[in-house]
Amino acid sequence: MNQAASYEKVIEEMAERAKHASRSLANLSSDKKNTILHQVAEILSERKSAIQAENTKDLQAGKMNGLSEAMLDRLALTDMVIQSMRDGLFEVMNLPDPIGQVTEMVKRPNDLLVGRMRVPLGVIGMIYESRPNVTIDAAALCLKTGNSVILRGGSEAIYSNLALASVLQDALSKVGVDPDAVQVVPITDRGAVTSLLNQESAIDLIIPRGGEGLIRFVAENSRIPVLKHYKGVCHIYVDQDADLKKATPIIINSKVQRPGVCNALEGLLIHRHLAGTYLPEIADALDQAGVTMVGCSVAVTKSSLIHPAAESDWGTEFLDLKICIKVVESAQEAKDYIDRYGSQHTESIITENYSAAKDFIETVDASAVMVNSSTRFNDGGQLGLGTEIGISTTKLHAYGPMGLEELTTRKFVVYGTGQVRD
Amino acid sequence: MNQAASYEKVIEEMAERAKHASRSLANLSSDKKNTILHQVAEILSERKSAIQAENTKDLQAGKMNGLSEAMLDRLALTDMVIQSMRDGLFEVMNLPDPIGQVTEMVKRPNDLLVGRMRVPLGVIGMIYESRPNVTIDAAALCLKTGNSVILRGGSEAIYSNLALASVLQDALSKVGVDPDAVQVVPITDRGAVTSLLNQESAIDLIIPRGGEGLIRFVAENSRIPVLKHYKGVCHIYVDQDADLKKATPIIINSKVQRPGVCNALEGLLIHRHLAGTYLPEIADALDQAGVTMVGCSVAVTKSSLIHPAAESDWGTEFLDLKICIKVVESAQEAKDYIDRYGSQHTESIITENYSAAKDFIETVDASAVMVNSSTRFNDGGQLGLGTEIGISTTKLHAYGPMGLEELTTRKFVVYGTGQVRD
Repeated sequence: MNQAASYEKVIEEMAERAKHASRSLANLSSDKKNTILHQVAEILSERKSAIQAENTKDLQAGKMNGLSEAMLDRLALTDMVIQSMRDGLFEVMNLPDPIGQVTEMVKRPNDLLVGRMRVPLGVIGMIYESRPNVTIDAAALCLKTGNSVILRGGSEAIYSNLALASVLQDALSKVGVDPDAVQVVPITDRGAVTSLLNQESAIDLIIPRGGEGLIRFVAENSRIPVLKHYKGVCHIYVDQDADLKKATPIIINSKVQRPGVCNALEGLLIHRHLAGTYLPEIADALDQAGVTMVGCSVAVTKSSLIHPAAESDWGTEFLDLKICIKVVESAQEAKDYIDRYGSQHTESIITENYSAAKDFIETVDASAVMVNSSTRFNDGGQLGLGTEIGISTTKLHAYGPMGLEELTTRKFVVYGTGQVRD
Repeated sequence: MNQAASYEKVIEEMAERAKHASRSLANLSSDKKNTILHQVAEILSERKSAIQAENTKDLQAGKMNGLSEAMLDRLALTDMVIQSMRDGLFEVMNLPDPIGQVTEMVKRPNDLLVGRMRVPLGVIGMIYESRPNVTIDAAALCLKTGNSVILRGGSEAIYSNLALASVLQDALSKVGVDPDAVQVVPITDRGAVTSLLNQESAIDLIIPRGGEGLIRFVAENSRIPVLKHYKGVCHIYVDQDADLKKATPIIINSKVQRPGVCNALEGLLIHRHLAGTYLPEIADALDQAGVTMVGCSVAVTKSSLIHPAAESDWGTEFLDLKICIKVVESAQEAKDYIDRYGSQHTESIITENYSAAKDFIETVDASAVMVNSSTRFNDGGQLGLGTEIGISTTKLHAYGPMGLEELTTRKFVVYGTGQVRD
């Protein structure tokens, strides 16, 4: 047996065991599921130093392999990171359990009572990079929704992830639940990812989290449905009727508060009526906040702080303190630009004009469309989902932040009294 | 340029045009969309004889190619079929339009108003066999939900489908809507299907309808999300506490009313307490209804009408007047059997026992789980969706009958007053 075939066999057996565990998991009470999460938090504390010892192996290997300081920082399971994993577990415990909820119950003309009951998806495959805390966070969301999960983290975090896997499995065992409900793939080779993506008879959903390269690889090689987002190229359009006292803090917050994330601002569109007055003002403010600016041929004439944009700048996800600025003729031109260069992630209009706001909200195609607010609000916690396992920019099943509900589906339940069909 | 490359080019251009048309379609009022459907119905009547002349070409070619009587019957656009297409259009006109509906609107602690607005998916690809009426039915559902659609029917119906395509496009033009919103693929070669499945940048969803072979081909070759069901292997479990006066009509209706469809009964599970008494009785009733029976080693001893089942009979979708019968020890054994041999389509229990009913409804994994009712009710119209475009037995996005809502998604809408993130 060659190596690829032996991966395939290991992964296939993991997937089958996950599927088997998912059956008992599907019908656990909320109390029982919360007890599991509580146990995970307890064991995390008890084993903190052992976990950190495993994490040190990853950090040392990372240094030897020349990982950047930023990468090593994301890899480290400091006391603070372990505390935040514990906090996350308690947050998920406190969220309402969507499983078993029945909605849209109606009495049909023939007296059949028909409703839709929320049920787990079954088995979820998570594929992610670096941060080992995702192992606990993702497992918590999957367990709370009665799903088994197979976790495949980055190879650079393998010792940390296996230590966290044993925390999760020991918590399950302690509560009398099949520990195969949570498994970490022990193979660091990318061949293991390919094998995972082939298990369509056992795995119901794949969620990749990481860079665009990883996500494309997963999307192109998966036989299983994938919920994904490639990138966040978010815009703000400052309408001619904008309240500029609102515009500036929103633009600065959207761009500067955390430039490296997907809901950060990348492109600013400004109505031509504001080009002579507001554009120099916001350019000064962005400059003071440390932002490099590139712009269209009109924008560059309005402020010496704005440099000419290269063609490749439009639609780019900078993930940095850099922004593209374009002067537009109208709201329609702004929307056409967003349609061409946006990534269907987050789009916001600044305006006091009722019709402009209504039109923007209704006609712009993005997972979150906003009026007079920072793009940074496109986040599961901020939008009221309690938490999130990622943000989907594809439209099937989930569009936008994915909370607990997005890890479930609904089956029809039918209560009859002997009905037959005519 | 070879033939496959030229298909690819034609299909790619169709998909791009469909995507372009979907933008204007997304924001049409319900009135406007209903006017389109009304126009389609009008033109269908006006051109009835021209459509039937094209249909005759397909029927003649079908006879020459040795299509069965049943196949020719499904292909024929008789006066009655055209009338039923018109009826279908008026039904869809009368359904509520889900687009633009905002739900779950909440005020966040920072006064942001957050809701979820129902929007079209964008472009839908329908791949189906034989029946040309699907061309009108599917187009009506997609247009009502503001989606563009690319239709790829069976090669044996190509003249009929192209005639119906011109009806649809002329109706769109007459109402001033981009006719590229509905297109029929003019290429009958299967290479055109493969090309369609590659257009992931323009097409948002593929819905295949047809035999298991077609559906597997689509699922395995698509880079676009697919909503599908492979087969319907539906069961009824007659519990020891069943009201047998209800059981018999439900079993007969489920098996006999229309044996060739996916929600017909294929397997009957009977509690051992009823094996000596009820089993011979239901075997007689099934025999009188013309049903051939195969069963387990216990079942065959209870009625001479039941023949020994081959291993391959269990879990088979007969689509015919044939049924598998198994005697089980308990509800748990029935559920284990369903778990192993069912296809997550429709499962029904016959019982008067409250706990048995509650447990079956909650723990059986199928798109519709029923108590005391015929499996034939798992249908969009019967369950109250108004209509259906298929039944999904996969869990992402839709599980069970897909109505108008399943052809849509939801985006987040955020109404702010200048909020920024801390």
